[in-house]
Amino acid sequence: MLESTHFKALQNIVGQENCYNDKAHLIAYCYDATRERYEPDAVVYPRDERDVSEILKYCNTHKIAVIPRGAGSGFTGGALPHKGGIILALEKYFNKILEIDEKNLIARVQPGVVNKHFQNAVEQKGLFYPPDPASQEYSTLGGNVSENAGGMRAAKYGITKDYVMALRAVLPNGEIIRAGKKTIKDVAGYNIVGTLIASEGTLAVITELTLKLIAKPKYKKSAMGVFGSIDDAMNAVYKSMASGITPVAMEFLDNLSIRAVEERFHKGLPTESGAILITQVDGDLPQVIEYQLSALEAKFKENGCQEFKIAQSAQEEEDLWFARRNASQSITIYGKKKLNEDITVPRARLPELLAGIAKVSEKYSFKIPCFGHTGDGNVHTNVMVEDLKDLEKGHEAITEIFKLAVDLEGTLSGEHGIGLSKAPFMHLAFSEAEMNLFRALKRAFDPNNILNPAKMGL
Amino acid sequence: MLESTHFKALQNIVGQENCYNDKAHLIAYCYDATRERYEPDAVVYPRDERDVSEILKYCNTHKIAVIPRGAGSGFTGGALPHKGGIILALEKYFNKILEIDEKNLIARVQPGVVNKHFQNAVEQKGLFYPPDPASQEYSTLGGNVSENAGGMRAAKYGITKDYVMALRAVLPNGEIIRAGKKTIKDVAGYNIVGTLIASEGTLAVITELTLKLIAKPKYKKSAMGVFGSIDDAMNAVYKSMASGITPVAMEFLDNLSIRAVEERFHKGLPTESGAILITQVDGDLPQVIEYQLSALEAKFKENGCQEFKIAQSAQEEEDLWFARRNASQSITIYGKKKLNEDITVPRARLPELLAGIAKVSEKYSFKIPCFGHTGDGNVHTNVMVEDLKDLEKGHEAITEIFKLAVDLEGTLSGEHGIGLSKAPFMHLAFSEAEMNLFRALKRAFDPNNILNPAKMGL
Repeated sequence: MLESTHFKALQNIVGQENCYNDKAHLIAYCYDATRERYEPDAVVYPRDERDVSEILKYCNTHKIAVIPRGAGSGFTGGALPHKGGIILALEKYFNKILEIDEKNLIARVQPGVVNKHFQNAVEQKGLFYPPDPASQEYSTLGGNVSENAGGMRAAKYGITKDYVMALRAVLPNGEIIRAGKKTIKDVAGYNIVGTLIASEGTLAVITELTLKLIAKPKYKKSAMGVFGSIDDAMNAVYKSMASGITPVAMEFLDNLSIRAVEERFHKGLPTESGAILITQVDGDLPQVIEYQLSALEAKFKENGCQEFKIAQSAQEEEDLWFARRNASQSITIYGKKKLNEDITVPRARLPELLAGIAKVSEKYSFKIPCFGHTGDGNVHTNVMVEDLKDLEKGHEAITEIFKLAVDLEGTLSGEHGIGLSKAPFMHLAFSEAEMNLFRALKRAFDPNNILNPAKMGL
Repeated sequence: MLESTHFKALQNIVGQENCYNDKAHLIAYCYDATRERYEPDAVVYPRDERDVSEILKYCNTHKIAVIPRGAGSGFTGGALPHKGGIILALEKYFNKILEIDEKNLIARVQPGVVNKHFQNAVEQKGLFYPPDPASQEYSTLGGNVSENAGGMRAAKYGITKDYVMALRAVLPNGEIIRAGKKTIKDVAGYNIVGTLIASEGTLAVITELTLKLIAKPKYKKSAMGVFGSIDDAMNAVYKSMASGITPVAMEFLDNLSIRAVEERFHKGLPTESGAILITQVDGDLPQVIEYQLSALEAKFKENGCQEFKIAQSAQEEEDLWFARRNASQSITIYGKKKLNEDITVPRARLPELLAGIAKVSEKYSFKIPCFGHTGDGNVHTNVMVEDLKDLEKGHEAITEIFKLAVDLEGTLSGEHGIGLSKAPFMHLAFSEAEMNLFRALKRAFDPNNILNPAKMGL
């Protein structure tokens, strides 16, 4: 509960029309993609960077928790006010593309710009912003940076952190800082940009981003490889990439995922196959496309690929990616509750990972459909719980999968972050010394612990 | 002066044969590429990570300064013990390539491995480690990470930070941490890898690096464009790159640099030209090489290029790069003392930058030959001081050039770091709030301020 003097002080900063504590607003900002719910004490819409600064200064003085929020589309509760506090909602006023600088291949944006809107705007100018999280239609660039969002194109083009050149931010004490430069090279001062990436809104509130763009490749083509077993498919992934081919994307669906998509959408997928790989290549010459596809076909077939099918039309291309994009919603046929995680391992450990997940599935008698971004070792595993009384057992299965990923030199999270959902598992991946370093870093930025407190297991 | 009890304690940790305070050792470790000299109190060679941990724990308890050092080839005094303390010399025992993992396109190395040795080792396996600082023949990978070294290939392949996936490090209190993963995607916990990059050995001692590799491109070719004026050349740089061509390198020499190289080495360079651009393209198909070169030729000629000469043999290729690589030593014909800086601006601001430098040259009557990595906006400016009594005026000229770079949205340093040399200029680029944030970050890692203290203007 926010004292009324505090609420009035916040209203004085942003105006009554930008500061609310009525039930409708509190409910509207109580959720994210985890479906957990925590009502905030107030919702505040800063109009500009100065508002952000004033709000933080006030809240820092009075030790009021502030939770920055973009679209609220996160999968781990990063934007949830689980300890109360005010939601700093950035989508209302911080939604402008400030500049697309075609001369330097750079853009300046506000953090509330939706990823896909930004992609569209730069593509209209023949440019390209590769990071494409599955949430791209609604997630914001500020959220993408705060969680270091990945996506399908990471295999070739990397992830959000590879595109953030500079930023403006407000520290918890209200001070405004700039970090980074519009230059590829910049080694003056500590790498504050790097430090803020993936910091889940716990260190500072980003108010402006300078992003790197590249030229849009002129040609692209997609293909599907059909495999008898998951193991063959996983070997094909890492062996083809180790041979020097770098497709834009190298996505996979296991048999359960294929059957689920087919049952719902009837796209003619090979329901008897052990797994499919869906891949895309791009380049500036048709020869480059041909070269990459034939090299991939050869490597796939060396590793047990039964059929290699190149999309021959825009429709066929669209159908392939439709299958991949709709895997997540299709697999809900296997259970009421989906415990989905985004573990990641080095590519060559994928065969072991998938074999290990199959064992967990057998041990706990849960179906665990898997799909995802195998080109960068990122697998979305989904423990499907049919009967809600088995939920605890489901969490045990998830814990085993986390341990497996860490044992295979992988990570708890490739894309979704830690937030609240994965906080209980941090001890599996980090030592006490490492956790203490995280806490010291947090204190350096936020000594009063007002910014998105008690996230990431800190 | 190190108390003898401390010296003996350090000897007890690493053995007498790895701990020295005789004059010969103190002199051998008193310099770097700045030619400033500060003798340390002792030189210690840790044999392994445990030694590093024990040394730091001891020095932290007794508040003894520790200066980590690789090859000592830095240009800004990052490895100089200007406040005394012990040199932690890593080149003796930390010089092993631990693993080249061809399956995952990753390598694990110790920080004292020389950049070029590593490049050669991975190229023997058909792989490629792009970061190529001019010091590559002797600088170490740990030093490269600590200064976030760039190089000629940054225009296409980025810089050191783009290749560091994970690391092990020892904190000033002796605790050993790991950070990052062998995976492209990893968003668990704060980005400690990113925080340590470019931190100039002030936050932790890196003991192991996991580096990203890529497949070695099958073909490459170089070309030279001859321009009547610097302005034409600078326009050609950014306009060709904005058009979507991404050469591996896009290097430039101005008229003074061309004439200096020609006077010393007689390579047949066009001494009457205003500037030359030396560029290289690569790819996996001959058609890709042809495509890029013809696109570059067209863009160069649209911007006043008088002659576009493609290297037709290995010898011609070698001659082109010889000219570029030997610019730095050749221009010493213009003065006894060379005040060289590595300012960087967004590429489209290069014409203004070079025009501004010409004005500074005129105002102070110094020759200021320029060359460098224009493909990423990084220009090596060299204020040549003939008479040493003009040194102060030389520093004034440098200060004006720094201001100019910052005004053009650029940075004080693209590659060399801040260390001691550029510390007095930090106020030109950073606000008090930003400097205070740097200090808070430093305290978070190093509360007793023992690790490379008083660097970077902190």
